[in-house]
Amino acid sequence: MKIDKLAGERFKERPSDCVIDSHALMVRGGYMKGVANGIYSSYMPLRRITKKIENIIREEMDAIDGQEVQFPVVMPASLWNESGRYESIGSELCRFKDRNDVPLVLGMTHEEAAVQLVRESANSYTKYPFMIYQVQTKFRDEGRPRAGLIRVREFTMKDAYSFHTSQEDLEKYYAICYDAYNKIFARCGIPEVVTVKSDSGMMGGSISHEYMLLTPVGEDSIAICSECDYRANMEAAESIVENVCEGEDKPLELVYTPDIHTIEEICDFLKTPVIESCKAVVYQKNMTDEYVIVFIRGDLDVNETKLTNYLREEVHPGEIVDGCGLYAGFIGPVGMDREKFTVVFDKSLEGTHNLSCGANQPEHHYTGLCISRDVGEVEYVDVAKIAEGGICPSCGKHSISISRGIEVGNIFQLGTKYTKSMGMQYLDKNGELQYPIMGCYGIGVGRLAASVCEAHHDDYGPIWPMSIAPWHVEICCLRVTDEECKSVADKLYDTMMADRMEVLYDDRDIRPGAMFADSDLLGIPVKVVVSPKNLKDGMCEICTRDKEIDKQMVPVDMVVDYVKNIIAERLAQGK
Amino acid sequence: MKIDKLAGERFKERPSDCVIDSHALMVRGGYMKGVANGIYSSYMPLRRITKKIENIIREEMDAIDGQEVQFPVVMPASLWNESGRYESIGSELCRFKDRNDVPLVLGMTHEEAAVQLVRESANSYTKYPFMIYQVQTKFRDEGRPRAGLIRVREFTMKDAYSFHTSQEDLEKYYAICYDAYNKIFARCGIPEVVTVKSDSGMMGGSISHEYMLLTPVGEDSIAICSECDYRANMEAAESIVENVCEGEDKPLELVYTPDIHTIEEICDFLKTPVIESCKAVVYQKNMTDEYVIVFIRGDLDVNETKLTNYLREEVHPGEIVDGCGLYAGFIGPVGMDREKFTVVFDKSLEGTHNLSCGANQPEHHYTGLCISRDVGEVEYVDVAKIAEGGICPSCGKHSISISRGIEVGNIFQLGTKYTKSMGMQYLDKNGELQYPIMGCYGIGVGRLAASVCEAHHDDYGPIWPMSIAPWHVEICCLRVTDEECKSVADKLYDTMMADRMEVLYDDRDIRPGAMFADSDLLGIPVKVVVSPKNLKDGMCEICTRDKEIDKQMVPVDMVVDYVKNIIAERLAQGK
Repeated sequence: MKIDKLAGERFKERPSDCVIDSHALMVRGGYMKGVANGIYSSYMPLRRITKKIENIIREEMDAIDGQEVQFPVVMPASLWNESGRYESIGSELCRFKDRNDVPLVLGMTHEEAAVQLVRESANSYTKYPFMIYQVQTKFRDEGRPRAGLIRVREFTMKDAYSFHTSQEDLEKYYAICYDAYNKIFARCGIPEVVTVKSDSGMMGGSISHEYMLLTPVGEDSIAICSECDYRANMEAAESIVENVCEGEDKPLELVYTPDIHTIEEICDFLKTPVIESCKAVVYQKNMTDEYVIVFIRGDLDVNETKLTNYLREEVHPGEIVDGCGLYAGFIGPVGMDREKFTVVFDKSLEGTHNLSCGANQPEHHYTGLCISRDVGEVEYVDVAKIAEGGICPSCGKHSISISRGIEVGNIFQLGTKYTKSMGMQYLDKNGELQYPIMGCYGIGVGRLAASVCEAHHDDYGPIWPMSIAPWHVEICCLRVTDEECKSVADKLYDTMMADRMEVLYDDRDIRPGAMFADSDLLGIPVKVVVSPKNLKDGMCEICTRDKEIDKQMVPVDMVVDYVKNIIAERLAQGK
Repeated sequence: MKIDKLAGERFKERPSDCVIDSHALMVRGGYMKGVANGIYSSYMPLRRITKKIENIIREEMDAIDGQEVQFPVVMPASLWNESGRYESIGSELCRFKDRNDVPLVLGMTHEEAAVQLVRESANSYTKYPFMIYQVQTKFRDEGRPRAGLIRVREFTMKDAYSFHTSQEDLEKYYAICYDAYNKIFARCGIPEVVTVKSDSGMMGGSISHEYMLLTPVGEDSIAICSECDYRANMEAAESIVENVCEGEDKPLELVYTPDIHTIEEICDFLKTPVIESCKAVVYQKNMTDEYVIVFIRGDLDVNETKLTNYLREEVHPGEIVDGCGLYAGFIGPVGMDREKFTVVFDKSLEGTHNLSCGANQPEHHYTGLCISRDVGEVEYVDVAKIAEGGICPSCGKHSISISRGIEVGNIFQLGTKYTKSMGMQYLDKNGELQYPIMGCYGIGVGRLAASVCEAHHDDYGPIWPMSIAPWHVEICCLRVTDEECKSVADKLYDTMMADRMEVLYDDRDIRPGAMFADSDLLGIPVKVVVSPKNLKDGMCEICTRDKEIDKQMVPVDMVVDYVKNIIAERLAQGK
């Protein structure tokens, strides 16, 4: 490929709407172009990268006996009604009607389609286990697309579905898939990806893992233990708190606290530590706007995902309006109307006493709160965010640190949620009908490409690993007006093309600086520079984008073999 | 791959809703499953076929300097408004809104997206010509999906777009693409595909060709000359008629013709030949329901596509209601209100006389019509269907025959329709702004797969060419309960797998008849049968699905090499 005909443009200025480097570099490098909010077209360099990623994924899925199939992008609502998800999923599921007013959806995941495809034919235990997968376009109407390919509305995803006759068999296959995923990320150039326990969210099921690339620009927060191998998405991480109950019970006492609103202000005013306070956090249910009051220890935050899972309803931060019976800044458990409001007590309050809290009347707080004495018996649930320095749920040490990460893949043990709701059954060995147990396994292709760029780039552009680089080698002809220079570069290009090497050729009549800037933006692993200066000594200059090889002089007639060696070595090493 | 875990089922009965063989066989063979009207999922055998077709297409597109890119499936309506197609395309364009009420469409073709992708960067003549293409899912809300993968609503398509600085350059590239398409169809196993001139329809532009697989079950009609190389889609074929004007002009005479309605009845009654009659065919415009009256020679039919192109409006067969001023069966050109109705005269009437026609009053006809004398000067246009035995527009002989065909691809010279409407310009050599000239080139992947099946099958299943067969070879172990038989078959399978051959293994404990029926349905080119009977002589039996090799006995230890040879030979020959 000659660069002068390559569709797309490369430029120097960082676009102002790009918040992370991979997005900025992939726009600046002519990899992608926005078509609508969260919807992109790919130019050739990105399409070559995503095709290579797709092929790596296919190879690893085929290696664990995956059968590649294809589900539709557009599905009838009736199929999603079978599982109940047509109703249960919010506006991220794109719903519309066809010319005959038949309701349709755009696939954002394909559990229903997977069950529909196999439910008649997988009717005997002898056909199990099996796994089907596809690589297909998906659409998810995200409220806040961001960060380029990291969170988009339309994306290409590999989604796999396995079917089993026992939980043990699912777990066995889940472990195999767990390893296959690690291989995929390693082969794509990011072996540093870690697995974390995750929340299953709308997928249903219980055990699930996410594969995270740890990076400060990630949108997920991950609790990692420095003492053991515990890692979990903040959304799923259990919060363990050592509740203290020292000293004698004090009486409940009303205190006048004018112009004091935040928990920090009140603790300051009362001269009590924040961990001896009971904070109220107000939400509203999405469907009904009904208020949900969460009481939690003053220094902790509410994990909305855990709260949602407990309530089995979506919530949003509440807005307190006049006359609703709540007084912002003064909400407390004593005298709270638990018929009118949904009230949740976090585990951090269990067995504590002598707390400060709002008094449910304007400008007043209580001190000396003891929930069991002053409120009565309540249920305590874990809805707190795990915090930096918090207690590890696995080893029990104060060794939790919070990192940020990009989720590049996930695996779920789904159980029988879909097979039961959609009536998929098979005859077991004893001739009895059973529901198969499912697992599902996803990887977003574009997000993975962007994550590799995020993990491997410098100020000048991406540093693509050989395995997914758009081309393996680039030839830069530094002076096309010089006859020898042009003819040597042409010949190198022709030789490499004849050898079916993946080569990009820059023979534009432009300044070397501009040529190298483009070269850096394309991030091709090996660069061959042909210049009149070096040709005087019969040499070309060879560099690798990662600077492992820098300005290596190689005799012209050895260039092709030298480059082939680098490519072969790196492909073999998975670099 | 072992067949017992293969998702999907194969069965004997032809499904009642399958009107063509390829559809029936691909359903019976476990290739595809309906999800909604015109929407299918693919099982592994079909997905393997379509992947191979996609790769053949990619290789041929890359060979003519195509750049693979990717456009979105979901596009904003605003993009389609730029070209005017958001309004001009009917209900086959799927329109809907996202969570923020932004109107979107599902891509059924991607001219707009192609222009959007390159319009800023291709700003100088030095960047031309270039071609970009993608392989992507499309959705077209067909009113009448039919015939399995032949006419669906969701499909995978390769669509390519080329950009040029002159008509000559477009034509040069168009010819290159024309040849590349022939290579693609030949490599996929249907070299018999022919090109025909076609109507450009909604794509805009003038010159275009379709690639047709001639088959009685095709939905397109094609006019083919037996004397020269003229071939055209009926929709585009010029109708040439030798108009006769013999004898003297007779006077216009009103005739009472009660209870006579069709042109055949009236000619019978008047004892005049049908070719001396002027028939009226009534349409209505889709947008306004305004009547369109087409006058045409009695023996000819109206080509609605030509009529639509002439009117630049969509029409449908008219319904004559009381009081509209038209009398069904008695409509004629004399006294026709040409202010109130759109009136079209077909060329078949030009220079004729002494015609019979309706008299525009109930139960009366005229004889002796001479249009120039009795109606005045009118414009004659070609809106007639070319007919079997008609005159070839190229060589002028009465040598037209009408065949049916499946359109497996098409190429269009688009001109500047999209670049002008969407404001894409470049600076030419003289520093002046110009609009690039476009071509576009499409192939439907699933339809191509079905067409190959339609062209190559027998009563028992498809006969896949080696180039796109789901697997190259199948091993049938005829008696798994026989230790030697199982062990020889296992070893063959293991050897072939280790050699990375594409092999399907049937080691189910079922009757040979059932095993062979499945084998026929999967249509794998080479079959190795391992049976106790032949093993007594140290032999396996090898057959090809096309029966070129039938029950060839091959010593067990030569089987793998023998099979490899067949595969290599056929791949080399493109069979």
